[in-house]
Amino acid sequence: MNKKVAVILSGCGVYDGSEIHESVITLLRLDQRGAKVQCFAPNVTQLHVVDHYSGDEMDETRNVLVESARIARGKIKDVRELHVGDFDALIMPGGFGVAKNLSDFALSGANCTIQPDVLNAAQAFVKADKPVGLMCISPVLAAQIFGKGVVCTIGNDHETAAALTQMGAVHNECEVEDIVEDASHKLISTPAYMLAQSISEAASGINKLVDRVLELAHAK
Amino acid sequence: MNKKVAVILSGCGVYDGSEIHESVITLLRLDQRGAKVQCFAPNVTQLHVVDHYSGDEMDETRNVLVESARIARGKIKDVRELHVGDFDALIMPGGFGVAKNLSDFALSGANCTIQPDVLNAAQAFVKADKPVGLMCISPVLAAQIFGKGVVCTIGNDHETAAALTQMGAVHNECEVEDIVEDASHKLISTPAYMLAQSISEAASGINKLVDRVLELAHAK
Repeated sequence: MNKKVAVILSGCGVYDGSEIHESVITLLRLDQRGAKVQCFAPNVTQLHVVDHYSGDEMDETRNVLVESARIARGKIKDVRELHVGDFDALIMPGGFGVAKNLSDFALSGANCTIQPDVLNAAQAFVKADKPVGLMCISPVLAAQIFGKGVVCTIGNDHETAAALTQMGAVHNECEVEDIVEDASHKLISTPAYMLAQSISEAASGINKLVDRVLELAHAK
Repeated sequence: MNKKVAVILSGCGVYDGSEIHESVITLLRLDQRGAKVQCFAPNVTQLHVVDHYSGDEMDETRNVLVESARIARGKIKDVRELHVGDFDALIMPGGFGVAKNLSDFALSGANCTIQPDVLNAAQAFVKADKPVGLMCISPVLAAQIFGKGVVCTIGNDHETAAALTQMGAVHNECEVEDIVEDASHKLISTPAYMLAQSISEAASGINKLVDRVLELAHAK
């Protein structure tokens, strides 16, 4: 099959970066389905660093690309090196890093902006009519990537859904094991850890997202 | 089924901590098979911190328990809180953290010692006749945990296998998708990223290891 998929990460750890389980499940399913994967991340400083044991903020600075490289076993590139012509689809796992490093949604809510290199990369897939998969909290980026009217899900959290609607997206509630498809925009989304109570619950929806994104992708 | 499995992590990232893919695949398979999981790590400083993007050592200090918490989404305990009576089996993923933080194998080779809290925890499973799964590089700990004559695999790397033999273990070569079982010691091992060329190759052996460890485990 040999479809090529770009995966954009946002650090390494649910509270200040990419959700690690979601990221690894995505990489595993893509590989099991025969896709070729390249990970990317923005070369920027994390908003902050969270001690995942205590939950406290740490007096440290870390770089999103450098920390994301942990999930990618070093095989990662600056998102500015993402050339849409080299790929058939894009997937973005969740984690607070999406709202803290890929955008400032965690601080600014519906008034957020997306990190410019990430926005450029994602919009290139839209312009090229190539499918995009957004999981967990990452659909908060959808309205700015796709424009108003795009349909997606973050599960059933009313506050987040309201912000998403305010930004111009259309929110559909969705169970953890399911996906929402906006056929005209070729956008697939799934709640993952916005709803999952366990890693296998998260995997159930993520696997469906990956499979559907690959079905929509056309290998060159 | 409700079998309870302790997973000991060694940080967060293949070059200075737990191999993230191996850890997440282990957690996923255990959950999919209905096991209850608790992660543990030693509350010690990492040997060093490696920039996984450049491969260079960083001028930072990080704590093994705190970084391991990223993989466990915060649900992790100090390995000194691991009471063998609460669990039916133990699994240790790989990554250089096993050789740098759980032991000093990376520095001392066959003359290595194991971090005392980790050694105590692991030996308690042996004394209780409960199964142990070791993957990737973690079988370098086997001889000290189980004693001389224990049978295990790290794949086919001759140098590592020689060190393992020098420590008193018996090394069996093994393909990436397979496991080695020492029935009398209830030890299961698999090469994982000692051999894997892809995440799905790693998963093939890890899934077998998890399944066999659970078969050997007796829920109370």
